Amino acid sequence: MRSVAILGIGQTVIDEQWDKSIRDIAADAVIAVLHDARRESAEGVFVGNMMSGVINGQTNLGPLVADWAGLRGGDAVKVEAACASGAAAFRSGLMAVAAGELDSAIVVGVEKMTDRHPHEVTGALATAADADYEVDMGVSFVGLNAMLMRRYIYEYGWKHADFAPFAINAHANAMHNPYARLHQKISLEDFEKSAMIATPINLLDASPIGDGAAAVYIVPAENLLPGSRILVEASACATDTIAIHDRREPLFLSAAYQSARLAYQQAGVGPADIGVFEIHDAFTIMSALSLEACGFAEPGKGVQLGLEGAITPTGRIPVTTRGGLKARGHPVGATGVYQIVEVVQQLRGECGPTQVPGLRIGMAQNIGGSGATIITHILRRES
Amino acid sequence: MRSVAILGIGQTVIDEQWDKSIRDIAADAVIAVLHDARRESAEGVFVGNMMSGVINGQTNLGPLVADWAGLRGGDAVKVEAACASGAAAFRSGLMAVAAGELDSAIVVGVEKMTDRHPHEVTGALATAADADYEVDMGVSFVGLNAMLMRRYIYEYGWKHADFAPFAINAHANAMHNPYARLHQKISLEDFEKSAMIATPINLLDASPIGDGAAAVYIVPAENLLPGSRILVEASACATDTIAIHDRREPLFLSAAYQSARLAYQQAGVGPADIGVFEIHDAFTIMSALSLEACGFAEPGKGVQLGLEGAITPTGRIPVTTRGGLKARGHPVGATGVYQIVEVVQQLRGECGPTQVPGLRIGMAQNIGGSGATIITHILRRES
Repeated sequence: MRSVAILGIGQTVIDEQWDKSIRDIAADAVIAVLHDARRESAEGVFVGNMMSGVINGQTNLGPLVADWAGLRGGDAVKVEAACASGAAAFRSGLMAVAAGELDSAIVVGVEKMTDRHPHEVTGALATAADADYEVDMGVSFVGLNAMLMRRYIYEYGWKHADFAPFAINAHANAMHNPYARLHQKISLEDFEKSAMIATPINLLDASPIGDGAAAVYIVPAENLLPGSRILVEASACATDTIAIHDRREPLFLSAAYQSARLAYQQAGVGPADIGVFEIHDAFTIMSALSLEACGFAEPGKGVQLGLEGAITPTGRIPVTTRGGLKARGHPVGATGVYQIVEVVQQLRGECGPTQVPGLRIGMAQNIGGSGATIITHILRRES
Repeated sequence: MRSVAILGIGQTVIDEQWDKSIRDIAADAVIAVLHDARRESAEGVFVGNMMSGVINGQTNLGPLVADWAGLRGGDAVKVEAACASGAAAFRSGLMAVAAGELDSAIVVGVEKMTDRHPHEVTGALATAADADYEVDMGVSFVGLNAMLMRRYIYEYGWKHADFAPFAINAHANAMHNPYARLHQKISLEDFEKSAMIATPINLLDASPIGDGAAAVYIVPAENLLPGSRILVEASACATDTIAIHDRREPLFLSAAYQSARLAYQQAGVGPADIGVFEIHDAFTIMSALSLEACGFAEPGKGVQLGLEGAITPTGRIPVTTRGGLKARGHPVGATGVYQIVEVVQQLRGECGPTQVPGLRIGMAQNIGGSGATIITHILRRES
């Protein structure tokens, strides 16, 4: 199995891009990544996307995006794992390059969600839950996360405001990310006064949707000169039941535990070695559960990391350093690739006021459903 | 890159399975493949599916199917390339095993289409065409193929009845396949009197949809004793524009040409070495175009292979030996895996009256859209 390196990154702003089709948005990111990688083409294109069939009336994004970006003819495919589609596509691209099948590939995550009515988008997001046993009973995706958050508060004795640091940190960091959807600092008071969506989740617990695309260019590491390469040290996918009621312990993300454990093994590291962790903070409760499952806090203690200031760029375990899903935005199938792009930006030292100092190793974790698919990647800068 | 072998196959009947959910149908095929492979589990599950989000309100089939089939926890993902989703999932599974990432994987293609109103299914199928430039103008997927067929008849001077042998052969072969949707011999007269759908495509030019799933179990070839292994000798994906009007020559399937050419190179063979060819006969016109692009006939001469009897199980290039899309049925995201399963059945000598004698090498080709994604696989039995 060949080692794989990331040669370039590209991304679009996350916003309401009503003047662009999904193919335009994806092509913008592909063109940006070709520019960054100083390449003119790639042998394969892997598209991460969740809901183009439902929302955009378009399947088969592989050839659509390849053609529109000027790469007509080659290997191209779409990979889907709900909100983990971006990381799933990255992982598929890695396999093809690692196997020796391709010598270069572009992975692009894209989603265009904002030109449909919100109730249609809510319905499309609910397809990530269990259609027969959850959605048919009327629960929405936010509703499922609300039940997890309520259970967590009941079980461990925290109050809702204790989750505020996750949102405050994300919004503060997004101020310095020109690609972020939200550029708006928030306070504890803002958080507490925010509109309720599904008790106890309020507007500032939840990440905004958006239109956007992010891309990375990958090559065999052996094709680059050693020295300052960004290497993919680990890629691990684990799954769980889709329906939350089927799990023995709903507050334990077993797939996060399992995929992080495998990733640590592959990279030969542990939680203490991770300098930045781009988490899947779709809701503040997910931040707490991820940090716990990945070994950064004991069960029930995840929120404490926020209260202690450990999650800021200068803290012990910086998270959402470019704004996270909460403030950078969550174009669902693109999110996993944005996370990879952001870890690369950190490893390159391009993050200005939110740069984590002296960084060598970063981790990204993308979650599909309420913990059904969890994919963890660890990247390392050589020097 | 490790060589990959197929250890087992499984499939369900293709029919209207109204009493089963999509997860049940997929699990039936997974359980069948575990039985055939004499294994109890697999490290990864790759699901090929096109339209579960649109038709079944369910995304993230990876963990859903893995969990329901008793394989909760491992690596699982869905791969989509419209009607080529099955072969795309197979190719993704191959890469993971070839790269050394997984030592066993199940690839399962599944689609459940018949419990929605036909106009919804027609709409879902149209998502494989170009949403902005074809579908928004009102053309359906059958309509696009009808234009290709009409152009072919005009350009090369054939008459509609000359396409009949493709349908007659498929129906005759399906009589001996217990998993096929249609068990009904047809004559030239039946073909000529068949109801018109979109001129010149009539009912017997077109393949029926259906609910069904097929699965294969793959392992590194080095983990099996040499002798009678079924080896994957080639896997190649090529793409073209989705919109037909963007192609220089609409009657030339350039992606079929390109993927077949790459596959022949990988396997070190040519068209004359292929003993059975499971083609993507969604419409009879596609059979002719595929045979031409893959080197079995000159441009404009594909239909002659049917008229000469070359495509029957004892002919020069047997196609659709288990009924093809036309009579076995076309549960779209599952079709590519059915094709692989059927080539394996032929290589094992399990096809009774439609067995191709003395077979060593078989090919399967799965098409997404009207030639946008074309994936070719070549399999070989060792002795």
